[in-house]
Amino acid sequence: MSVTAAKGFTAAGIAAGIKDNGNPDLALVVNTGPRLAAAGVFTSNRVKAAPVLWSEQVLRGGQVSAVVLNSGGANACTGPLGFQDTHATAEKAAEVLGHSAGEVAVCSTGLIGVRLPMDRLLPGIEEAAKELSAYGGDKAAIAIKTTDTVHKTAVAEGAGWVVGGMAKGAGMLAPGLATMLVVLTTDADVDAPGLDAALREATRTTFDRVDSDGCMSTNDTVLLLASGASGITPEAKEFAEAVRSVCDDLAQQLIRDAEGASKDIRIEVVNAASEEDAVEVGRSIARNNLLKCAVHGEDPNWGRVLSAIGTTSAAFEPDRLNVAINGVWVCRNGSVGEDRELVDMRYREVRITADLAAGDESAVIWTNDLTADYVHENSAYSS
Amino acid sequence: MSVTAAKGFTAAGIAAGIKDNGNPDLALVVNTGPRLAAAGVFTSNRVKAAPVLWSEQVLRGGQVSAVVLNSGGANACTGPLGFQDTHATAEKAAEVLGHSAGEVAVCSTGLIGVRLPMDRLLPGIEEAAKELSAYGGDKAAIAIKTTDTVHKTAVAEGAGWVVGGMAKGAGMLAPGLATMLVVLTTDADVDAPGLDAALREATRTTFDRVDSDGCMSTNDTVLLLASGASGITPEAKEFAEAVRSVCDDLAQQLIRDAEGASKDIRIEVVNAASEEDAVEVGRSIARNNLLKCAVHGEDPNWGRVLSAIGTTSAAFEPDRLNVAINGVWVCRNGSVGEDRELVDMRYREVRITADLAAGDESAVIWTNDLTADYVHENSAYSS
Repeated sequence: MSVTAAKGFTAAGIAAGIKDNGNPDLALVVNTGPRLAAAGVFTSNRVKAAPVLWSEQVLRGGQVSAVVLNSGGANACTGPLGFQDTHATAEKAAEVLGHSAGEVAVCSTGLIGVRLPMDRLLPGIEEAAKELSAYGGDKAAIAIKTTDTVHKTAVAEGAGWVVGGMAKGAGMLAPGLATMLVVLTTDADVDAPGLDAALREATRTTFDRVDSDGCMSTNDTVLLLASGASGITPEAKEFAEAVRSVCDDLAQQLIRDAEGASKDIRIEVVNAASEEDAVEVGRSIARNNLLKCAVHGEDPNWGRVLSAIGTTSAAFEPDRLNVAINGVWVCRNGSVGEDRELVDMRYREVRITADLAAGDESAVIWTNDLTADYVHENSAYSS
Repeated sequence: MSVTAAKGFTAAGIAAGIKDNGNPDLALVVNTGPRLAAAGVFTSNRVKAAPVLWSEQVLRGGQVSAVVLNSGGANACTGPLGFQDTHATAEKAAEVLGHSAGEVAVCSTGLIGVRLPMDRLLPGIEEAAKELSAYGGDKAAIAIKTTDTVHKTAVAEGAGWVVGGMAKGAGMLAPGLATMLVVLTTDADVDAPGLDAALREATRTTFDRVDSDGCMSTNDTVLLLASGASGITPEAKEFAEAVRSVCDDLAQQLIRDAEGASKDIRIEVVNAASEEDAVEVGRSIARNNLLKCAVHGEDPNWGRVLSAIGTTSAAFEPDRLNVAINGVWVCRNGSVGEDRELVDMRYREVRITADLAAGDESAVIWTNDLTADYVHENSAYSS
């Protein structure tokens, strides 16, 4: 159901010829109202793609009537001409849909440093507009795939209202924002500040805590659009929880589809002095290539966890650290704990618990193992 | 010639049975004087191995008469009993050599979280002491290898004095200190503060700027021992340059022998506002797994360089960044530059130049590509 699960939205996904292989590569999501409220969260990378620079401006107005998304090219590091391409994309969508270009967000994903084939993209917008449908959510989700093996959608239902969404992302997942494009829609009647608050809190504890390969994208975008079509304004907390639930679901789908991964690693840092400490330690563990290789080899190499913790500025005493892998406390008080032979790592999900013994805060960070397939996917061709 | 190139030093390397495979695993380096001055630099990891904690104490006295080094076990995360093992090692060497244990440094390398087989290590010290020779430098260098494919030694000659050294390290190279064990010796007559100043300046621009896989060890140690046997006290600048030259040579050998690597990547950041900015940007590029995969695939994917620069706090404007790969300026002013097809990446050394256009400071960071062999070496068995 994706972005069309909520009333007041239509969507489409087509093959415009942006990708050489003829796969779907252009998606449109349109808010048919009555409300056009929107909020967005963007990459914190200082090198931002043209569509990010454009959409940040659009979102400042708090209104989005349509989103154009393309795969097959990131339109990043393309200079002033690349920005003109994004502008022309928004203008074309506005013309075809009868909207204002200042309310059209644009998202792009693919190779950095290559101009988009505008001679295919602009006619594609006309074609996509003809396909717009209240059942087009899945097609839109399929059209934004790059190296994704599956399309990703999620829905949460409230009392008479819905939050739905789609995501793409399989590599370059990283904090600052897990690298990806995400469009969420809702028919709840919520204004732009309400959407913004719910979205920021949701991404902070979901997409922001997915760190597949430590690399931060130039194109990360998460948009939340509200049509108000249900006529219902949910209680803020209830609405925020629905948005968080959809973000969490999509973030999990991103991790499970990460490039070349054979293991999903759930890193829980407990008994930290602060949530910031817990997140810092979790990220440090998540980015340790040696540990990620060990998990790939089903080797409960807890020394690599400790050496990762030791590089952080978090509050802890080395001789009070405890580490469990899949429930077995292989490290106690910074030293050898239970027999590592007891750890069963045959299954896809691997749980690492790092106990800092320094407080009562905690955080969960997700990552993947590092595999020869990851190397292959990212060395055999440009992406 | 290694650590015995300088007069006033003997060394030995033997197989004590610490390694299961029977390879050499125990080295001794002895300063026969007349001077016993020494300086040391250790890992900045807060989880420090027992031998690091011990040797830091020893070096505070500024005198080292002998160094015991073992491969086959890091003696890290082994608790108070592990520290007792290091203490017993120093006591044994002191007893055999007729020195004070407080002047015996200890270095260990190998798997974290496993106690050392003291029933083999202690008799090994007696055996190694019998083998001590002014020609034992190479044997000592061989005995400290872990996954190293070659042993690493270097020498620089002054006017009547010498600086020589040995290093081990192939994985876990990282900043804070490239992960490794290094022992440098000199027959120059330099006191402990003089050694300390030369060593810190040398490691700052050599080992500290080698970042093979972003992982920081619990055991990094670099020691510089002076015997004064030449009777010559060189000018401070001249001595510092000789120490830097030996460190640079050994650092290059570490990079060329990094686990699974097929490319050595020299990242030069130029026109930075400060040296700190240049180093931060260089490290960020060096740690970008996607870029390291691209280099492995001989793909001049400069977009990954820009996305790495964008995650830093260095002073720069995105639309003024320039990037060259092997001399071809594939990115100019943050956008498409010369044709990427012009880049020839067939050779082992790959040079990436990042021009921040923000000042006139620069720095060079070395790293390697990320390969399936790296994944294999670090997943197939515990190390």
